[in-house]
Amino acid sequence: MIPQHKIQSLVWSWLEEDIPNFDWGAQAVGDRITTATLYIKSKGVLAGKPFFDAIFQQLDCSVHWYEEEGGNSSLEDGKWLDPQPWKDGRKLLAIAKIKGPACHLLRGERTALNVLARCSGIATRAFLFTTLAQQHNWHGRISGTRKTTPGFRLVEKYAMLVGGVDTHRMDLSSMVMLKDNHIWSCGSIAQAIQQVQSVAGFSLKVEVECQSFSDACQAAEKGADVVMLDNMNPTQAKQVANAVRQLYPQVLIECSGGIREDNIVDYFSPDIDILSLSLSQHCEVVDFSLKVENNGLDS
Amino acid sequence: MIPQHKIQSLVWSWLEEDIPNFDWGAQAVGDRITTATLYIKSKGVLAGKPFFDAIFQQLDCSVHWYEEEGGNSSLEDGKWLDPQPWKDGRKLLAIAKIKGPACHLLRGERTALNVLARCSGIATRAFLFTTLAQQHNWHGRISGTRKTTPGFRLVEKYAMLVGGVDTHRMDLSSMVMLKDNHIWSCGSIAQAIQQVQSVAGFSLKVEVECQSFSDACQAAEKGADVVMLDNMNPTQAKQVANAVRQLYPQVLIECSGGIREDNIVDYFSPDIDILSLSLSQHCEVVDFSLKVENNGLDS
Amino acid sequence: MIPQHKIQSLVWSWLEEDIPNFDWGAQAVGDRITTATLYIKSKGVLAGKPFFDAIFQQLDCSVHWYEEEGGNSSLEDGKWLDPQPWKDGRKLLAIAKIKGPACHLLRGERTALNVLARCSGIATRAFLFTTLAQQHNWHGRISGTRKTTPGFRLVEKYAMLVGGVDTHRMDLSSMVMLKDNHIWSCGSIAQAIQQVQSVAGFSLKVEVECQSFSDACQAAEKGADVVMLDNMNPTQAKQVANAVRQLYPQVLIECSGGIREDNIVDYFSPDIDILSLSLSQHCEVVDFSLKVENNGLDS
Amino acid sequence: MIPQHKIQSLVWSWLEEDIPNFDWGAQAVGDRITTATLYIKSKGVLAGKPFFDAIFQQLDCSVHWYEEEGGNSSLEDGKWLDPQPWKDGRKLLAIAKIKGPACHLLRGERTALNVLARCSGIATRAFLFTTLAQQHNWHGRISGTRKTTPGFRLVEKYAMLVGGVDTHRMDLSSMVMLKDNHIWSCGSIAQAIQQVQSVAGFSLKVEVECQSFSDACQAAEKGADVVMLDNMNPTQAKQVANAVRQLYPQVLIECSGGIREDNIVDYFSPDIDILSLSLSQHCEVVDFSLKVENNGLDS
Amino acid sequence: MIPQHKIQSLVWSWLEEDIPNFDWGAQAVGDRITTATLYIKSKGVLAGKPFFDAIFQQLDCSVHWYEEEGGNSSLEDGKWLDPQPWKDGRKLLAIAKIKGPACHLLRGERTALNVLARCSGIATRAFLFTTLAQQHNWHGRISGTRKTTPGFRLVEKYAMLVGGVDTHRMDLSSMVMLKDNHIWSCGSIAQAIQQVQSVAGFSLKVEVECQSFSDACQAAEKGADVVMLDNMNPTQAKQVANAVRQLYPQVLIECSGGIREDNIVDYFSPDIDILSLSLSQHCEVVDFSLKVENNGLDS
Amino acid sequence: MIPQHKIQSLVWSWLEEDIPNFDWGAQAVGDRITTATLYIKSKGVLAGKPFFDAIFQQLDCSVHWYEEEGGNSSLEDGKWLDPQPWKDGRKLLAIAKIKGPACHLLRGERTALNVLARCSGIATRAFLFTTLAQQHNWHGRISGTRKTTPGFRLVEKYAMLVGGVDTHRMDLSSMVMLKDNHIWSCGSIAQAIQQVQSVAGFSLKVEVECQSFSDACQAAEKGADVVMLDNMNPTQAKQVANAVRQLYPQVLIECSGGIREDNIVDYFSPDIDILSLSLSQHCEVVDFSLKVENNGLDS
Repeated sequence: MIPQHKIQSLVWSWLEEDIPNFDWGAQAVGDRITTATLYIKSKGVLAGKPFFDAIFQQLDCSVHWYEEEGGNSSLEDGKWLDPQPWKDGRKLLAIAKIKGPACHLLRGERTALNVLARCSGIATRAFLFTTLAQQHNWHGRISGTRKTTPGFRLVEKYAMLVGGVDTHRMDLSSMVMLKDNHIWSCGSIAQAIQQVQSVAGFSLKVEVECQSFSDACQAAEKGADVVMLDNMNPTQAKQVANAVRQLYPQVLIECSGGIREDNIVDYFSPDIDILSLSLSQHCEVVDFSLKVENNGLDS
Repeated sequence: MIPQHKIQSLVWSWLEEDIPNFDWGAQAVGDRITTATLYIKSKGVLAGKPFFDAIFQQLDCSVHWYEEEGGNSSLEDGKWLDPQPWKDGRKLLAIAKIKGPACHLLRGERTALNVLARCSGIATRAFLFTTLAQQHNWHGRISGTRKTTPGFRLVEKYAMLVGGVDTHRMDLSSMVMLKDNHIWSCGSIAQAIQQVQSVAGFSLKVEVECQSFSDACQAAEKGADVVMLDNMNPTQAKQVANAVRQLYPQVLIECSGGIREDNIVDYFSPDIDILSLSLSQHCEVVDFSLKVENNGLDS
Repeated sequence: MIPQHKIQSLVWSWLEEDIPNFDWGAQAVGDRITTATLYIKSKGVLAGKPFFDAIFQQLDCSVHWYEEEGGNSSLEDGKWLDPQPWKDGRKLLAIAKIKGPACHLLRGERTALNVLARCSGIATRAFLFTTLAQQHNWHGRISGTRKTTPGFRLVEKYAMLVGGVDTHRMDLSSMVMLKDNHIWSCGSIAQAIQQVQSVAGFSLKVEVECQSFSDACQAAEKGADVVMLDNMNPTQAKQVANAVRQLYPQVLIECSGGIREDNIVDYFSPDIDILSLSLSQHCEVVDFSLKVENNGLDS
Repeated sequence: MIPQHKIQSLVWSWLEEDIPNFDWGAQAVGDRITTATLYIKSKGVLAGKPFFDAIFQQLDCSVHWYEEEGGNSSLEDGKWLDPQPWKDGRKLLAIAKIKGPACHLLRGERTALNVLARCSGIATRAFLFTTLAQQHNWHGRISGTRKTTPGFRLVEKYAMLVGGVDTHRMDLSSMVMLKDNHIWSCGSIAQAIQQVQSVAGFSLKVEVECQSFSDACQAAEKGADVVMLDNMNPTQAKQVANAVRQLYPQVLIECSGGIREDNIVDYFSPDIDILSLSLSQHCEVVDFSLKVENNGLDS
Repeated sequence: MIPQHKIQSLVWSWLEEDIPNFDWGAQAVGDRITTATLYIKSKGVLAGKPFFDAIFQQLDCSVHWYEEEGGNSSLEDGKWLDPQPWKDGRKLLAIAKIKGPACHLLRGERTALNVLARCSGIATRAFLFTTLAQQHNWHGRISGTRKTTPGFRLVEKYAMLVGGVDTHRMDLSSMVMLKDNHIWSCGSIAQAIQQVQSVAGFSLKVEVECQSFSDACQAAEKGADVVMLDNMNPTQAKQVANAVRQLYPQVLIECSGGIREDNIVDYFSPDIDILSLSLSQHCEVVDFSLKVENNGLDS
Repeated sequence: MIPQHKIQSLVWSWLEEDIPNFDWGAQAVGDRITTATLYIKSKGVLAGKPFFDAIFQQLDCSVHWYEEEGGNSSLEDGKWLDPQPWKDGRKLLAIAKIKGPACHLLRGERTALNVLARCSGIATRAFLFTTLAQQHNWHGRISGTRKTTPGFRLVEKYAMLVGGVDTHRMDLSSMVMLKDNHIWSCGSIAQAIQQVQSVAGFSLKVEVECQSFSDACQAAEKGADVVMLDNMNPTQAKQVANAVRQLYPQVLIECSGGIREDNIVDYFSPDIDILSLSLSQHCEVVDFSLKVENNGLDS
């Protein structure tokens, strides 16, 4: 789903960032064909394989992912992995072999691990949210906002998908959102919707950020596809959503602002279709490491 | 210190990411000259002004930062800001005005806030670490590793500097680090150092990752400028550092691996010069928002 | 609505294409500040000002557009212009002055005219279609497909907007369209919709290309937002559209394939919401020229 | 003749334009190895194979072009193709098979067809002009101007070559043309030629746009390699060309301005060496389509 | 003559090369507005102002070039400068002031001097060659080949122009040269010319590398615009040139290979139109330095 | 040691420079698989293989380097080659075969030779300097400055390494150098060092340019890792170096300014660790040529 031309550009820019001229360490290790093992060291959802593979492919290394336990297909993004205690209490699970010239392996190591750690971290957090929804039998969508790391959005939105979270709109050229600032600049919700409909065609949805039931009604009346209830607490949100649903059953209802791990359950309601938050802020990474073959693993 | 050509390229790539073709919302708001206020909504160290300013400059908007309290100079990166409760318990502190065509203001809003939030978050975390060191009278350096978000390293390393943390090496073309994988690929610490010295000239330092006192001695003996004690607990680390210091007083001693907010104090020792960790993983953001002028602020 | 970073990149690439190294002619004309007049030489809708202006701005020239007849605002994209016979039967209407160093004026001339001619040509064709719709009191949207010139889509889609035509989806990352090839690859309309809904979130519409009434029903049943009746003649199209409308009033109905200037009127129907075709294939350009000041205009 | 680095850059930019982030449809079709057939649906000259092939190569698909009828070599650019009626009166001729992952095939489909349709359209128009010349036994060159689509010139000039038309100069860094604006800015033809000869060396030809016999004589006298008779009707053009030829037999004579399909024959004359016009404006495309394998072709 | 978009790209790439991330030294000097003086320290022809100016412009510094001695216009590229002994026998001549933030001045210093030194060095060498020709009353052109530094050709070709040397063709897309390798690959001079004429149109000259009088005759016969006598000594070259001139007076005659400062005079002949060699290989630089204002100049 | 992504970008930009659109000559030679031989024609150190190979690889040609004389490994960068007289006194030594489509071979020829000639030239000059040091038993390092050709530094610094010369710092983001301009802007050596230490962390060395013994002492006192004695003659330099060494034995001592082939020997001293100069200014190239197979080699 991620086009190759996109991945290759990102990989190029990441390597350029990490190796602006010479790779001095390469001289120490030479280019003998070597094998390294990728370990996962904390539990979580695996995500980021297309980027990991592309980094090493660009460096003329091949990646061989282990098979799933008991299965006969190789590990895929989305798999929950739980490394077991191994030595000194540290947890470790080998999940792939990378093979290539030693200097190339080490050249890509840090970048590849950085991507995998962040991508898996976000997928893991996404998965925990979607699990919560399932456990509470809520059938709406959890959705991740545009509060992503600049330049790294494709990876982060991909991680959300892997973890089962809706990507929301990708950018300002996708679904139109008329937020408070738009509405204030424009004068009213009605005017803002009218203006934007004059250019954004039938293929785009229009969403309006609403501060109140009355805002939501105005938006729905004027043709908004989605109304977003902004910064309401669970009680308000569910009350307003229910009222809007009665009047405008065809409109999607989203809540956003202040939704966290510890309160999202209170927002679950059949009248709310989407709960959105930033998945990539405050997100823990999953821990991975790469070790070249060695007699007697010391580290 | 950050060259303009670099900032401009980053800004270009961030805007390209967020607006691959049309900015539909722009049609709603038009290009009337408008003023927006930047608010900080959670406490922390301000960081990221050069990027924030450049985003709006590229969009033909001007940014006017408020003066420091009681002072006569404008707010600078590095300033600790503590927004006060304002309404409904929410905290808010106005810190800058941005002025320009309404559609340009809103076009840059999300990207500018994303950078500021992440950059300030890292600076804040860095500042908390350096404060700990000061409180415990430790005179070494806390240093941030290359475990940064791919493509976003310049911002993250800059944030570390703002928060008082050493940037460690920037990339593989800077100071040479011979890590476990290098040494295993090469055969021994001695060989790895010798190989790398044949190319990396007098202007580069050489650091060696050491698993033991014996490793550290071998590295120091062969000319390493820095020895890094890898993954040792505080007791081990201080013991080995002390022993190395006795024998090789000219060598810098770094500890890395497993150092966190909750145990760094135990590593403080006059024999340890550098404590390094990833500042940008697991890092909370600082909360900012931008609001255009409006009669009766509803949000 | 077109972000500056996008225009500037396009302008850069166009100048690079036309002047890969030296501009020899510049030596002949020097850099004396000179004024040139932009003439329109065939009737049509003006479109392309943002690109035209940006080309000359990048070349340190200023563009001053004439005021509208009888009005007090300058000419804007979307204005219908009808140059009058002037000399030897040739038609001419002066519409802007460009001022700057002579060599810069001539450096940008061809590129600026090429953009303006094509952009206005498409806007003119779009306008003729929308005029037809108005004359026949049809309230649907005429929409332009992705059959655009590779690399020049932003200009062409912008021209459609100027001429009153819906841009349809911009690219494969916008609204999902499941076309015949997708459906064949996937097995059935139902499966294709289900697959794509698992990743494309609530913010994206889904359109399905349908070969028959039965296809359209299947698509609507499974949640398609838009059904596209492919390659049907006017009679079939209106018949199927009416039948679908009865059953699925919430679904948008588009017709595409074989629609031309000479038959579009036959497709106008209250049951058809969108008629789409390629606006940029087979499209005539509008004729413009640029002349520097001269005593005795010979050409 | 088109260097690979150039084609690859163009292909990259085209894919980037059409897929700025995710390719949603890919999810529906998966990556099963699939075969698609390329059909030509209207008659014309095939042109654009190097670009078509490169698009699919970058997407890891292979293209197999059919053999020429009765021949044993595969179809090449320049071949006149005339699809035969097949079903419902529609014309169709299968000309190539493309094989690769289904999602990759569909990812490249629109871009590849857009290039092929435009490139073949221009080649076809070029071929019709050159055929006219042959039929009338005219031995000069028909030549295509710089009035090309910005960013797409390489494809359009290549199409001209395929259709037998001279590419004229590629850009401002090629052959120097002193046009009316240059001459007016400079003061006189003589001065303009002298100025430009001081920098443009022996390897470049110099062409001068002339409004009259007297202009042409002045240009030839001062060393112009080519004189271009601007906007003359056939009678004038042939008269002036003949007079210039008598006096300056070594100078190439070009006519430009107002030459069209319906009047070019009137310009054919042994005294005119080059007839130039824009081949890519007002040009019809050739119709192609791509269909993946399917049991029972419905479309 | 050098388009701005080209200079700006080059400047960007040069600054990127010299400052891949932070400019540490900037922290030492701050951004106080400072003035620096540009000195020339060895004699030669000034060349490279457009690049020098653009580097500092991109860094928000202004450059003020001194007036010519006794004149009232500022120093221009092409001016011969002869610094006079000043202190300790070292030569120095102040030629410009640069003003801007101290850290920006020093950021651009090395890159700007590197360009100026190389560009002026080549212009100086070119000037010495053209002076030789003038002294010997030879009216042909000395011309610089494509043996330039990869990536730096525009600067080097510009330097040749400044020094009065013909740029020869700029690249493989300019004038066609059929060299020995082309002819061997193709079979014969006649075939090579015929092949290339089928695509390279009327606007391009064709040059053929000839090993003998017979080659030259064949080339001229088949329509070559320029024959290049390859690697002949002065006696041979003049003899063959004279013989070719008799038979083909319209053909330009170039000699290339083995021509140096110490033997070029022997090649001067009215039958030879062009003498070509690499101006940028083995070329000395002109020495420049930049000094910020200081009380008591120590260096 | 040179990362592939870097080489590929350079190669792309070089080919783009030399072939901005069509490669006309390619039409003459066609794409028959052909073999060419690379000859070295003047003696020197071979350097530039990674670039040479990458150019032809990008053009789908393969390069086969000859084996070393009497050895069984192929020629490597760093090898001294001494072509022997062969015909007409010209020297020639075949060192590699390149195989690929004829038009691709000739497309890369000039660029590949330009890189090889310059890279080998610098390596040869570097080797002569290091040989001098060995002959005089001097154990310091000769080092090449940042006075390189803009855009071509990676190649030039690589050539220095091949020739045994230290690359000195690569750019402004590497080791900090406080030069005269920095110190004047800052006020004093002490202040400059202090300022820079506040940002440039433990991983970077700091070097200070010193005009006198007193400067050097101040720099060493404040923590400089390297003191550079600027523009001193051999006697001064050795005297000051000796005095500094006595007081600050841990500090590296560099001399720079005015060091040339003809006086470097006078600077050799055990108290001087580094002698630096520009290796790439005033540097002769090594002569190479490429010839395709031909019956009867005429050239």
